[in-house]
Amino acid sequence: MTREEEYMAQAIDLASKGWGLVSPNPMVGAVVVKDGTVIGMGFHKGPGTDHAEVAALKEAGIEARGASLFVNLEPCSHFGTTPPCTEAIINSGIKKVFFGLIDPNPLVNGRGIKRLSEAGIEVTGPIMEKESRSLNRIYINWMEKKTPYVIAKIALSLDGKVALKNGKSRWITNDKTRQRMHYWRSGVDAVLVGAGTIRKDNPILTARLPYVQRQPKRIVVTASGNIPTSSKVFEEGGETIIIAPKSNPPTHLKEFAEIMLIEGDGDRLGMRDIIHTLGEKGITSLLVEGGTSIHQQLFKEELVRYAVASISTKLIGSLGQEWLPAWNIGEMDAVPRVVPDQILVINNDIVIEGEVNYVHRDS
Amino acid sequence: MTREEEYMAQAIDLASKGWGLVSPNPMVGAVVVKDGTVIGMGFHKGPGTDHAEVAALKEAGIEARGASLFVNLEPCSHFGTTPPCTEAIINSGIKKVFFGLIDPNPLVNGRGIKRLSEAGIEVTGPIMEKESRSLNRIYINWMEKKTPYVIAKIALSLDGKVALKNGKSRWITNDKTRQRMHYWRSGVDAVLVGAGTIRKDNPILTARLPYVQRQPKRIVVTASGNIPTSSKVFEEGGETIIIAPKSNPPTHLKEFAEIMLIEGDGDRLGMRDIIHTLGEKGITSLLVEGGTSIHQQLFKEELVRYAVASISTKLIGSLGQEWLPAWNIGEMDAVPRVVPDQILVINNDIVIEGEVNYVHRDS
Repeated sequence: MTREEEYMAQAIDLASKGWGLVSPNPMVGAVVVKDGTVIGMGFHKGPGTDHAEVAALKEAGIEARGASLFVNLEPCSHFGTTPPCTEAIINSGIKKVFFGLIDPNPLVNGRGIKRLSEAGIEVTGPIMEKESRSLNRIYINWMEKKTPYVIAKIALSLDGKVALKNGKSRWITNDKTRQRMHYWRSGVDAVLVGAGTIRKDNPILTARLPYVQRQPKRIVVTASGNIPTSSKVFEEGGETIIIAPKSNPPTHLKEFAEIMLIEGDGDRLGMRDIIHTLGEKGITSLLVEGGTSIHQQLFKEELVRYAVASISTKLIGSLGQEWLPAWNIGEMDAVPRVVPDQILVINNDIVIEGEVNYVHRDS
Repeated sequence: MTREEEYMAQAIDLASKGWGLVSPNPMVGAVVVKDGTVIGMGFHKGPGTDHAEVAALKEAGIEARGASLFVNLEPCSHFGTTPPCTEAIINSGIKKVFFGLIDPNPLVNGRGIKRLSEAGIEVTGPIMEKESRSLNRIYINWMEKKTPYVIAKIALSLDGKVALKNGKSRWITNDKTRQRMHYWRSGVDAVLVGAGTIRKDNPILTARLPYVQRQPKRIVVTASGNIPTSSKVFEEGGETIIIAPKSNPPTHLKEFAEIMLIEGDGDRLGMRDIIHTLGEKGITSLLVEGGTSIHQQLFKEELVRYAVASISTKLIGSLGQEWLPAWNIGEMDAVPRVVPDQILVINNDIVIEGEVNYVHRDS
């Protein structure tokens, strides 16, 4: 790692503190460096607060004159809820700017760099683009598609089963591992389950971690409307949305949750429609917790972008319930795979987190 | 960890260097300590060579007088291929002996400790008994049952499949992970596969690692006798044994391998009989590489004692082939599980190694 990459890694690390705070904005961190010393650090803490660059420059104060700024995303050049960062940078006397990624936001997208360069600042980048992109994959997806980034969450036995034959699955993994799943809930805009999961497990679907400032929206998909009004998902903890077919609106649930109606034959709802509709509601990220029929539809249509899979060393046996759809692939190197960002060993469980890479089977 | 445990851990670590060298003997390591300094170390390198204690005492020389000896297994008190270690210890002037485990060998089993105590040596132990037991689980099993310790080796996709629907499984895991499996082959007395695996994958079943001194016996189980004489398992690399039913002896393979006949109906061979017969041949450990029908029989009869499972992040889907039998368990806390000794992350694969703990389902 070069010195520049080390400072950028520090900016990325700062940025990641914005997890769960900044949506629909990107996570951004900034570091001001002068004569080999960090003299200012900042990260974006949410809409309306200082952008990372401004926070870092404030910390650096007049020392910023002649210093270098490291930021994981191209500084903004437009007025949003705060003035453009480019102007703050220019005014501060910063000499060099290192950035991690061009901002895919069409309002910026190179304009920030152009503005800084025109003002005589030396701009270098992208550096650590892969890491910068990976950190803000939800934001990038949102900018490109205006649909939520779909994350499938699953707990598996060592032999890849999600439940016993009788449907029982509490608990495959240990409670420390399940804490990790609360981290994921704490960062996404919404958590989605099928009504079957509500009837079977009755989860509350909140992020139960001490530092959580904002609960994800809780989304329940139902074709039948069969959701007990006593379900925990209707208890305090955040907003709840029921997605149901126009042909069968669950009007009896109106006082418990927002009802979102979509096309559908009353038997099965199209996941593509659901994702699209949630995008229209401004949901940028969706943690899909199950059940498996929802996962299977999502995987079949290649809508799952990221997987968070926890594996225990339990052996459920071949009568246990399956996770994935019945796709038929002829060669080992053509199967989809998770490309791990990280593999955690938590007590005796393993957590694998990574992007899903669908191989094109006809290639 | 106390000071004593640290020395014992050192002895255990030394002992483990005997992997693949000492069978049917235990792996033993010894450390001689005087005034807080290690003055002698040794481990058993195989039949006919110095026992660990003797090797360590030789290194310590006359300095052993008044010193302490740490050894993971009770010193032997009987004449084998070498004289009893107890006498060497007594003659060396060692003052204290710390041991990890009482030797389950009926020829020793407390007699070593008794002999040392009677000679005025202060004997302390067992210390780190769990670790000492775990290191020599194959030896302990052999002493108790005179049957091989059965280790199931398996490569799984993230969703727990062992092959595509069409049977292809090369390769689920990466080559670095498969190296780890050669480590296991290098340490066991024998490797076992079904004839189907020979026909499908045609493996040579040798331990291909630079330091390997002794190849495991290669055992092929066949009811039909349908094994091509051109199979790689008949090539150089060690002794090959075919296990077949008495009712259908594969006489055409006689010049290629030793034939071992057992009872059986010509359709399926009882794994319990096979294990028993291999025990009679002096095989103390057996790495069962598959196929899954053999694994399934072994798991069903609770004959698998240890599992070495490697998991890739590939997603084979629910049409893929199953690993385990179709047992039916009603509660999550009643399922069998692997109790990991260690979990390795190798590139993007995971290797889990541990004892299989069968829960009694009727309890």
